[in-house]
Amino acid sequence: MRLSKIQWKTYKEIPSEAKIESHRLLVRAGLVHKSAAGIYSYLPMALRVIHKIEGIVREEMEAIECAELRMGFVTPGDLWKQSNRWETMGSELLRFKDANKRDMCLSPTNEEAITDIFKASITSYKQLPLCWYQINTKFRDEIRPRFGLMRCREFIMKDGYSFHMDKACQDQFYDEMYGAYLSIFKRLGLEALVVEADAGNMGSSDSKTHEFQVVAEEGEDAIAYSETYAANLEKAQTFREGLEFTKAQKLEEFSTPEMKTCEDVCKSLDIPIYQSLKSLLITAQKDGAESHYLVMILGDDELNELKLKNFLGADQVYSTHKAKLENFNIPVGFIGPIGIDENFEIVFDNAIDLDSSYVVGAMKEDFHLKGFVPSRELKDFKQADLRLAREGDFDKEGHSIQIKRGIEVGHIFQLGNKYTKSMSATVLDKEGKKFNPEMGCYGLGVTRTMQAAIAQNHDEAGIVWPVAIAPYHVYFALIGKSEEIKELGNEIYKEIKESGIEIIFDDRGMGFGPMMKDADLLGLPIRLVLGERDYKNSGELEIKIRKTAEIIKTKKENMIETLKSELSKL
Amino acid sequence: MRLSKIQWKTYKEIPSEAKIESHRLLVRAGLVHKSAAGIYSYLPMALRVIHKIEGIVREEMEAIECAELRMGFVTPGDLWKQSNRWETMGSELLRFKDANKRDMCLSPTNEEAITDIFKASITSYKQLPLCWYQINTKFRDEIRPRFGLMRCREFIMKDGYSFHMDKACQDQFYDEMYGAYLSIFKRLGLEALVVEADAGNMGSSDSKTHEFQVVAEEGEDAIAYSETYAANLEKAQTFREGLEFTKAQKLEEFSTPEMKTCEDVCKSLDIPIYQSLKSLLITAQKDGAESHYLVMILGDDELNELKLKNFLGADQVYSTHKAKLENFNIPVGFIGPIGIDENFEIVFDNAIDLDSSYVVGAMKEDFHLKGFVPSRELKDFKQADLRLAREGDFDKEGHSIQIKRGIEVGHIFQLGNKYTKSMSATVLDKEGKKFNPEMGCYGLGVTRTMQAAIAQNHDEAGIVWPVAIAPYHVYFALIGKSEEIKELGNEIYKEIKESGIEIIFDDRGMGFGPMMKDADLLGLPIRLVLGERDYKNSGELEIKIRKTAEIIKTKKENMIETLKSELSKL
Repeated sequence: MRLSKIQWKTYKEIPSEAKIESHRLLVRAGLVHKSAAGIYSYLPMALRVIHKIEGIVREEMEAIECAELRMGFVTPGDLWKQSNRWETMGSELLRFKDANKRDMCLSPTNEEAITDIFKASITSYKQLPLCWYQINTKFRDEIRPRFGLMRCREFIMKDGYSFHMDKACQDQFYDEMYGAYLSIFKRLGLEALVVEADAGNMGSSDSKTHEFQVVAEEGEDAIAYSETYAANLEKAQTFREGLEFTKAQKLEEFSTPEMKTCEDVCKSLDIPIYQSLKSLLITAQKDGAESHYLVMILGDDELNELKLKNFLGADQVYSTHKAKLENFNIPVGFIGPIGIDENFEIVFDNAIDLDSSYVVGAMKEDFHLKGFVPSRELKDFKQADLRLAREGDFDKEGHSIQIKRGIEVGHIFQLGNKYTKSMSATVLDKEGKKFNPEMGCYGLGVTRTMQAAIAQNHDEAGIVWPVAIAPYHVYFALIGKSEEIKELGNEIYKEIKESGIEIIFDDRGMGFGPMMKDADLLGLPIRLVLGERDYKNSGELEIKIRKTAEIIKTKKENMIETLKSELSKL
Repeated sequence: MRLSKIQWKTYKEIPSEAKIESHRLLVRAGLVHKSAAGIYSYLPMALRVIHKIEGIVREEMEAIECAELRMGFVTPGDLWKQSNRWETMGSELLRFKDANKRDMCLSPTNEEAITDIFKASITSYKQLPLCWYQINTKFRDEIRPRFGLMRCREFIMKDGYSFHMDKACQDQFYDEMYGAYLSIFKRLGLEALVVEADAGNMGSSDSKTHEFQVVAEEGEDAIAYSETYAANLEKAQTFREGLEFTKAQKLEEFSTPEMKTCEDVCKSLDIPIYQSLKSLLITAQKDGAESHYLVMILGDDELNELKLKNFLGADQVYSTHKAKLENFNIPVGFIGPIGIDENFEIVFDNAIDLDSSYVVGAMKEDFHLKGFVPSRELKDFKQADLRLAREGDFDKEGHSIQIKRGIEVGHIFQLGNKYTKSMSATVLDKEGKKFNPEMGCYGLGVTRTMQAAIAQNHDEAGIVWPVAIAPYHVYFALIGKSEEIKELGNEIYKEIKESGIEIIFDDRGMGFGPMMKDADLLGLPIRLVLGERDYKNSGELEIKIRKTAEIIKTKKENMIETLKSELSKL
């Protein structure tokens, strides 16, 4: 394609709302045009990336025998009322009345619509298992859309839905889908991590669910991973190693004036911080009722509130309010498990050895205790995994843990029979009895993946597209003004195009500097320059590999071969 | 693909709302699932047809160097307010407020959105001409959606928009687009007619506009066409030939008791009906004011109200109300131009020879006049093309006119600078002066084309897909229960699949009769049957051409070759 026809241009102005680099690059490289908050038009270069992502997704879905269909973007409220989500979904479900005053909404997801199709076409267990998917526009009415295509309102998503006779069949297919997702990201050329996710309110308690995260510094999610483990930081269960605890010393009080942190106290004793315990007063709320906890973790650990919330089965947890502390006569900075008001139930983190000695607050202004041994001093307490995983931890097989940041681009779920039950979707089993099939759902954000690819693959000069999803393979620039060189340029452009290599020809007549800047910003894998002077001197064209900045000179007659060989290496 | 995986099934029940055959076939052949009134999910077979149509459209757009992009489906009300259409569009523009209480709507068309993108990227005449297009979901909130995908609410459409420096450039590109549309329909395998259309309120008076109509009996539109002419019946200007008029006889009254029609009177005189004139009293309304007309057409012609309305520049025209006739003392059945109240202005149709004699009403109960010669008897009158074209007419080059019915699937328009002006889209011309570019828009209904293809190509047994857009090429059915034949079936399925022929394998284990019925209903170009008994006897498989019902026997070793050769003939 000639750039003059595609009407592509780069932008120097960066919108102030673009807080992350991938968003800035989307705009600067002329990939999207903002139509309204969180609503973007995909300009020709971006649409090619999208089509390539869609193509790879399609092929991997076909490979596991999923059938593609396409559901309405506007769905009737009636379906959502059947599943009860008309009421329970928040304002992100954009509801409206149509010209006939009927309740309608814009699909943010399609469990209801697919179950409705299922009911119309599937009657017997013999037709199971099956998986339908679509690649379609979705809408989530975010109040504060941001980060470009990351948290936008209208986006393109692949959503698949499978139906099964039983959990065993669902498990087997889930693994196939898991494999297909791995293949997809591999083929897209993206480094992705799979993490166990929190099922939230999607399925039942034994439901599997995984997130697929594209690794990128700007990612919103932190992931704890090792060579054999990966989990969202919020969920990660990792372990500390090499801690030396001192066994059962005598319990004694000592003066610690003004020393309100574990760090201060341990420094004064010249012991590692982890030999002290941090005392956190936490209030948990459940069904409107409050209960209070003294949570004890190693002095240099952090509390993972989500773990605590899940352990307590609470609706929410938060630091106990100051006013409450005064009621209970609590000396902030010197809190400890001995002498605490009995309204506070005590919970130790799993990393704490209950038979070792620790420094803790003495529940008395300017005093701490040393030689506190949980199992010796206390009778009533609980213990659970409550600490936040961190870099330097180990997984249970002893591999060391690193923390990477990621962008969630895929999420697969087992849904149980939540929707088939609420929407009365039944099929007949071998004995002719009706049952509600097990269901799985499998999402992959297409437009989000495009931006995640940019987040993972860029440098100071711009985007560095993986070959598989680059808008084109080669950026061809012509430097020279004679008719002769222009004719040669046209010839080369046609020759490369006919060879099947995807090429854009910058025929906009810009200067060399701006053209090279544009080329770097757009980030096609290879830049090919036909310079009049160089060509006359040496008969060579210049190839530059965007990723490595490597320069390769080539004669016209070897050009196609060289381009193909360089592309295959990327 | 194996049918067991695609989960395809046919339906016997025909929804009562399906009034036309193509709608019934869409449902019966398991192509769509209705989600709400006028909102359909495209099931896997239909989606393949859609993708094939999209593919051909894309290739033809690329061939004339249009660049594909994709705009938001939800568009902000602000854009529509700029062009003034927020107020002027009817309820088919589905408007709503988003979570931030901003006016939004679902795109029924995208002139505003594309002009907004244009403003952000194009600044100079050097960047023109250009054409962007998208293939995307659209929504028109029809109050009474009907006829399946013909008048539905959510549909897929290709919409393209071009921008030009001047009308000459727009004209040239318009012709290229016209040619691309012809290529598209040819490649789709559909008989289509191009008709001059009514620009309505889309562009200015010298704007070109054409409709592309897929010929089908059930079409809503009637088209008058000859080998060199085609126009919507409403707009068609055609001619009668071979009429013999009698020249200037004496004007005389004669008694015609109870004879209230031209037919009755001419019969009594034994003259052709066209030697009489039909007198129609018409009221035209413009800006709320009424004016009255006596419209005269040949006795066997019909009035084309649209032509009359356009000729008079009226907002609407209708038969003058009965009450009015009494005021003016009009003898219904015997109306004529002589003695008519002067409130009625007289207009003759062009087919009337003003110097010949006609029979007309005498404005007196039970009497007519003969020898009425318009130019002799009257001074004040007008003449215009007012008659409705019909089968048997001739175009101005003398080719005979036929009437066919068609389904409008494409419409191309010249828009002038209506949108670039109202939305202040300017670029600089050669002298550095700002101007509003000329614009064209080019629509093609993708899902509508799918149904139109069915409307044009079906028989009593079901659909007969053109090869280019058939969901698959070959329907492969296996008749037999032995493991041996099943294995052979699998082998054949794989072999054909690998040859690149698109095949579905009916492995649902149904009986022969229902399977053949399903095959005919789905209407793939070729049916291939492997019958256990036949194969054992003759070593042959049976090929049936869906369109011609021709049967061809083939040995397994010649199978691929035969299939390819038969497909290429279709």
